Amino acid sequence: MSQTPDSAVRTYIEQHRAAFLDDLAAWLRIPSVSAQPDHAPDVRRSAEWLAAKLAETGFPTVEVWPTAGAPAVFAEWPSDDPDAPTVLVYGHHDVQPAAREDGWGSEPFEPVVRDGRLYARGAADDKGQVFFHTLGVRAHLAASGRTAPAVHLKMLIEGEEESGSPHFRELIESRADRLAADTVIVSDTGMWSEDTPTVCTGMRGLAECEIRLAGPDQDIHSGSFGGAVPNPATAAARLVAALHDEHARVAIPGFYDGVVELTDRERELFAELPFDEKQWLSTAQSHAAHGEAGYSTLERVWARPTAEVNGIGGGYQGPGSKTIIPSTAMVKLSFRLVAGQDPDHIEQAVRAWADRCVPDGIQLETVFGAATRPCLTPLDHPALRSVARAMSRAFGAPVRYTREGGSGPAADLQDVLGAPVLFLGVSVPSDGWHAPNEKIELDLLFKGVETSAYLWSDLAEHWRDAP
Amino acid sequence: MSQTPDSAVRTYIEQHRAAFLDDLAAWLRIPSVSAQPDHAPDVRRSAEWLAAKLAETGFPTVEVWPTAGAPAVFAEWPSDDPDAPTVLVYGHHDVQPAAREDGWGSEPFEPVVRDGRLYARGAADDKGQVFFHTLGVRAHLAASGRTAPAVHLKMLIEGEEESGSPHFRELIESRADRLAADTVIVSDTGMWSEDTPTVCTGMRGLAECEIRLAGPDQDIHSGSFGGAVPNPATAAARLVAALHDEHARVAIPGFYDGVVELTDRERELFAELPFDEKQWLSTAQSHAAHGEAGYSTLERVWARPTAEVNGIGGGYQGPGSKTIIPSTAMVKLSFRLVAGQDPDHIEQAVRAWADRCVPDGIQLETVFGAATRPCLTPLDHPALRSVARAMSRAFGAPVRYTREGGSGPAADLQDVLGAPVLFLGVSVPSDGWHAPNEKIELDLLFKGVETSAYLWSDLAEHWRDAP
Repeated sequence: MSQTPDSAVRTYIEQHRAAFLDDLAAWLRIPSVSAQPDHAPDVRRSAEWLAAKLAETGFPTVEVWPTAGAPAVFAEWPSDDPDAPTVLVYGHHDVQPAAREDGWGSEPFEPVVRDGRLYARGAADDKGQVFFHTLGVRAHLAASGRTAPAVHLKMLIEGEEESGSPHFRELIESRADRLAADTVIVSDTGMWSEDTPTVCTGMRGLAECEIRLAGPDQDIHSGSFGGAVPNPATAAARLVAALHDEHARVAIPGFYDGVVELTDRERELFAELPFDEKQWLSTAQSHAAHGEAGYSTLERVWARPTAEVNGIGGGYQGPGSKTIIPSTAMVKLSFRLVAGQDPDHIEQAVRAWADRCVPDGIQLETVFGAATRPCLTPLDHPALRSVARAMSRAFGAPVRYTREGGSGPAADLQDVLGAPVLFLGVSVPSDGWHAPNEKIELDLLFKGVETSAYLWSDLAEHWRDAP
Repeated sequence: MSQTPDSAVRTYIEQHRAAFLDDLAAWLRIPSVSAQPDHAPDVRRSAEWLAAKLAETGFPTVEVWPTAGAPAVFAEWPSDDPDAPTVLVYGHHDVQPAAREDGWGSEPFEPVVRDGRLYARGAADDKGQVFFHTLGVRAHLAASGRTAPAVHLKMLIEGEEESGSPHFRELIESRADRLAADTVIVSDTGMWSEDTPTVCTGMRGLAECEIRLAGPDQDIHSGSFGGAVPNPATAAARLVAALHDEHARVAIPGFYDGVVELTDRERELFAELPFDEKQWLSTAQSHAAHGEAGYSTLERVWARPTAEVNGIGGGYQGPGSKTIIPSTAMVKLSFRLVAGQDPDHIEQAVRAWADRCVPDGIQLETVFGAATRPCLTPLDHPALRSVARAMSRAFGAPVRYTREGGSGPAADLQDVLGAPVLFLGVSVPSDGWHAPNEKIELDLLFKGVETSAYLWSDLAEHWRDAP
């Protein structure tokens, strides 16, 4: 089967543009804030709204899947070709908290279009990017004259991503048979810039821990005892200081075990991106670049593991002074992981390192949270090539490759379903994820629709290509 | 003039014991908590109560001195010998906060005697130890048959010591002519133990600062930016870790400039004290001794300068995790200083060191609070010998020497008045200063009275002895 003609896809999208935007606006009006318990009914309403819309789109099977927290939506549309590959689209229907007084120019849950941009909480993260698949698959059918997609299409749209997906792993493990797929398309990321369409090839993983240090049984007087007993805040600081060596490499023994190093080709491709470090620092609201010696900023963020202190606390933090040796201190550490690193191994390495770092008289408790594995799809993977081709057709421009420094439940899909995870997103860095005045560029939103419309035919045609 | 006969002093004290305790109890009932604004009237009432009592004791001049905060009490009783030395007794009439529910066995401001101990907030710190001078001076007069003390006696009892004496320096500078003295006796300390009477010969000084570190302009995502920009919490931790070298010596260049080292004799005297490190650790509620290599625990606490982190904070400290690079972090540091160290020099040294420690991209602000100078009286000082002799007579035992690791406004008296500061206290470590169930041992309280009774004659006789 050949690719559908681009003009047919574009015509169909143009005809349905207004209705699509009306529908998306209706969904964005539902404040599905998963982190706020009083919005739990809204999160449920959001799931039900989406389920009804996916049924209307044509998915013959649509189910709302309860979890111990917020519900997910599952939809399935088998191909008329039984040998077609199965693709699972992942996204989420919950959103970050938002309030007008945080600095929004308009009500966050009252979508408005200004200057070709749709402003609303969830416009880019992630309702807009979930929703472009609904018009995408219908354009695919209309332009190809099919009555069912060229691939077996499944969608899993969870409701707790903005709360750390606490029940996601359990959900996909218990529903692994229904979710089985040859490849996973995650539509919850972005691309380099409006002018530079890119496909993301991997995400870093994440391991997190809190290390609690206990010294004196209560705060004690720094005059009476200072200089003669160990101070847990000092011990906490020394732990953090020992995280990195003088080259800003992580100094925990065993931390780099198994790390998949960047290939020369990947480094070349990264270097080709129009990266402006000054601009990047401005986006990072930071005043200097600083990281592992021997790597560029993009390499550090996308392809190198890190150890970062997210919080540190101990002793007196109020105004003025208090001459104590604190009883306790704590540090919250997170480790971004890259392909080849195993969270369990990292946990063991961190525990052993922390135990060795702490002096006599300080007790240590290290608590790890749930970890997220890294994922990475090789550049020559046929499904990745399909995504790049579909995107390139939509944008009329060559597609470059990025990675994502953050971490997401996508890695669980890779892990549980054993399928490669690909990333298809059209959001740009200025879209303001988690920030006031979140928006999506309408031009890019419809490039997303168009990419989705091309992708299923391309995947069906090429998914068995040898790498 | 010879010393007054001990039996006459003791008889006088015994005769006036009950009335003295009644008076002290009346004073202790006034909750003169200087840190709590709603107790400001009580602090004033405490000053007025004491002023009336000092007038009743016989001081011909008694004044309540206002400050921008709580008032101090000044009293003066000239000797009938115009060539006698002038002695200024320092103490304070304000107390730490206390509430029954903090763990008190009885109401903190309703004094009770149980098992030979007087329980009340302020019993030891400092009302009891101020008040023993009132009976002391009358016993001195009664036993010696004098109508005025053997020394020109002045008392300055401040009302803000438990709030950090914010107006004390200003007060004594503006009243320096009235306060002029040959020596200062501070009665706001303690002794080694009930069985080991000791005289304190010095206090450590104190310099305090807060170092604020600013990285990104707001908290930023540790996935998007982690590993590629400097983290102010890491910088804060590295600062704290750099405070000490591997021998637990302070590693700030210039920090030890001018330090008066312990003499061999002082080290011998410290070593003769019945020090039980296990017991000391139990008092310190700590689980190991740790400090500067080459010094004993007592030497570390009494005679060595320190750098201690009293508080550290940055980033997310709530439950769970938050994957950010924090925008800011801060550390609160305090430095205990010993004789020979200058707080201004320490401030310069810390500022220069901190500036050098912090990486590009992190902004630093270092804010110093008011400093307290160290003070130290040589073992062979004649006034120190008088205190030791008077105490030895009262206790019927040899007196040993200690120092105080903490810091106090006493050092300002030394500084402004140019007079050596001596410490006379009979409190013991179990008295629970600043803690629930503060008490004073009645036996020791009356040894304090007796010491005070002997001291003025001894000082008058010996203050011109060559060291």
